[in-house]
Amino acid sequence: MSFHSMWAELLPVGRSSASGGYRRYAWTGADADCRAWFRQQAEARGLAYEVDRNGNQWAWLGDPAEGDAVVTGSHLDSVPDGGAFDGPLGVVSAFAALDELRGRGARLTRPLGIVNFGDEEGARFGLACVGSRLTAGALTVEQAHRLTDGDGITLPQAMEAAGYDPDAIGPDPERLGRIGAFVELHVEQGRALDLSGDRIGIASAIWPHGRWRFDFRGEANHAGTTRLADRRDPMLSYAETVLAARREAELAGAVATFGKIGVEPNGVNAIPSLVRGWLDSRAADQATLDTVVTGIEKAAREYAAAHGVDLGVERESFTPVVEFDHALRDELARILGTDTELRVPVLGTGAGHDAGILSGRVPTAMLFVRNPTGVSHSPAEYAAEDDCVAGVSALADVLEGLACT
Amino acid sequence: MSFHSMWAELLPVGRSSASGGYRRYAWTGADADCRAWFRQQAEARGLAYEVDRNGNQWAWLGDPAEGDAVVTGSHLDSVPDGGAFDGPLGVVSAFAALDELRGRGARLTRPLGIVNFGDEEGARFGLACVGSRLTAGALTVEQAHRLTDGDGITLPQAMEAAGYDPDAIGPDPERLGRIGAFVELHVEQGRALDLSGDRIGIASAIWPHGRWRFDFRGEANHAGTTRLADRRDPMLSYAETVLAARREAELAGAVATFGKIGVEPNGVNAIPSLVRGWLDSRAADQATLDTVVTGIEKAAREYAAAHGVDLGVERESFTPVVEFDHALRDELARILGTDTELRVPVLGTGAGHDAGILSGRVPTAMLFVRNPTGVSHSPAEYAAEDDCVAGVSALADVLEGLACT
Repeated sequence: MSFHSMWAELLPVGRSSASGGYRRYAWTGADADCRAWFRQQAEARGLAYEVDRNGNQWAWLGDPAEGDAVVTGSHLDSVPDGGAFDGPLGVVSAFAALDELRGRGARLTRPLGIVNFGDEEGARFGLACVGSRLTAGALTVEQAHRLTDGDGITLPQAMEAAGYDPDAIGPDPERLGRIGAFVELHVEQGRALDLSGDRIGIASAIWPHGRWRFDFRGEANHAGTTRLADRRDPMLSYAETVLAARREAELAGAVATFGKIGVEPNGVNAIPSLVRGWLDSRAADQATLDTVVTGIEKAAREYAAAHGVDLGVERESFTPVVEFDHALRDELARILGTDTELRVPVLGTGAGHDAGILSGRVPTAMLFVRNPTGVSHSPAEYAAEDDCVAGVSALADVLEGLACT
Repeated sequence: MSFHSMWAELLPVGRSSASGGYRRYAWTGADADCRAWFRQQAEARGLAYEVDRNGNQWAWLGDPAEGDAVVTGSHLDSVPDGGAFDGPLGVVSAFAALDELRGRGARLTRPLGIVNFGDEEGARFGLACVGSRLTAGALTVEQAHRLTDGDGITLPQAMEAAGYDPDAIGPDPERLGRIGAFVELHVEQGRALDLSGDRIGIASAIWPHGRWRFDFRGEANHAGTTRLADRRDPMLSYAETVLAARREAELAGAVATFGKIGVEPNGVNAIPSLVRGWLDSRAADQATLDTVVTGIEKAAREYAAAHGVDLGVERESFTPVVEFDHALRDELARILGTDTELRVPVLGTGAGHDAGILSGRVPTAMLFVRNPTGVSHSPAEYAAEDDCVAGVSALADVLEGLACT
């Protein structure tokens, strides 16, 4: 099955007709449909299919127990109203690259695996990369058991409802130990390749990034009858903090975003009792990120105090800077450098990935495919089919270079 | 049944154990429980019970067809996580005042009615005073049919599910024509009585007030990878507008509040595509309110343009200033003035009420009961039982003075 056909098959799954975006949240029906598709692709190619204890899906050519396996893949879940490419491009390209390798008559000397990591986006339970974190031991079982979605359903309940055994989750060092190299192909989530005029890039590092929850607690009251002087309105200090985040990020050359909010009671004629805002912030290095987040929190505390509002700040997740394995990165550059028509720049990224989680345990690399607008996490996310096909070809070259020598 | 017992009976109905506030939304189960309570109170007193075509409940002593009836009452529904007093105090006090009149052996010369208006708060369908508006012809049937709640259920669907006939709704001039005076007792939603040291007040006017929806439309994108310069983030112009609203209101001596927000996609790592904020604004007179809202909208348009964000502003509801009937107001002051221990100040209010809707059709007045903190639309809303009992007594005096002479 060609890249084009696989892509067309996945396109309608979990797509909202209202927004045109994807709502493929972990352990939902749309997620199950994506997972059924993965299994079908594996079985249609005669690959050995398995699901690990954390719900990640694997398809194997050769016996992984031999060790030093080369693995590629990504994820199939999405952010709320996300695009078609973030995640699925890496999985579809993995199957297509395997087909291309077979077409070339390449002979594998190492086991080759394709993986779909579960719950990468964290759209449902608020924590990204749950599948790879659990496997790598970067998330404890106790922490995972406490993850709860917006409807009060816990991760174990959601996994069980989807037909998986939540009692089995946990670190899986044996499985990781079999992997000699992991390469994740991903649509670029910025415009670096577009600006440099290249189809394909290699990742250097993932910026350190984290999520902080700001709870501004004031006093609910009637919006029509409460004098301004008597108010403890948390919306005001939230608004001031949103603007402070932008200023701090601009000053530091970082990014900071308030994209999610929860308000109680959220009534038109009620001053809120609670405004809960989530800050996402990232920077090229740890010191810069610390400066930005400390600056935002300090400003928020001053604003809250000025309005008689209580502020609680909690870091919900954090990922330190990830420097991808230099030897593997250089090997990818060497392999792709033999194609004289392809220039492959090396670039950093502000986005987290399963590859970032695995990089602490396994030599890991990433390939990026050009995104002409840089738009991601949106229905407008896009990559030209030509560039996707070039990505498949580059991934096939990399897999051949690593697994057939 | 005493005021205290009736109050205790209603207290648990529709109360959230999580917030301690009330969630008595129109045509829900909690609303049905409140309505069953009203009917039971009416029947236990041998009053003629009826529901009008718009779902408002009535209890009659004497035959309303005789006309020139004296009516009192309020509403039983609540804002999200509202308090116990806003609405129910007026209904419970109505039944208690009738009991007091009977205890005094008062002989009625005019029919006496007690009313529970449906859907006063507009918590579910976004428009306040739906029951009284429909009856007074201040909301057309077509407009009412378009009202939709957050789950996409229309008002007619909700009424039908609750066992009412949505095809019957519409203006009810004949019913209004039978009413000679309407008096609504309500907990004060401010601190004027507390500051003046009085238990009871009489309303002079309701400030003009309205609700405006601000739709800031930007571009969803990845919060980690999109350069600040490439963003069209609607959260920023929303935040600036929240602060502009406070400034404009302060300058004009008015109130302006953004208490409700909706964000799409509302993901931690996604720049929003849409931030929808609702402005509630009120002022002592129309010109001031116009100045405030015009100022906020102008500022919002500038902020939106600066961020490449589209702004749509829609006025969702508006109620002009309501001057309560001067003759009736003076009559109430005269009746309550015979109690030399009671000083009854006359005060304006920023809150809308069914009394405000009816005042265009029927001589209407309002009594306020002291609120020691001024807090309303919150679980912390409170009035001392002494003051509530004084309110019942004042209402009984007013009803006796109007209906027994």
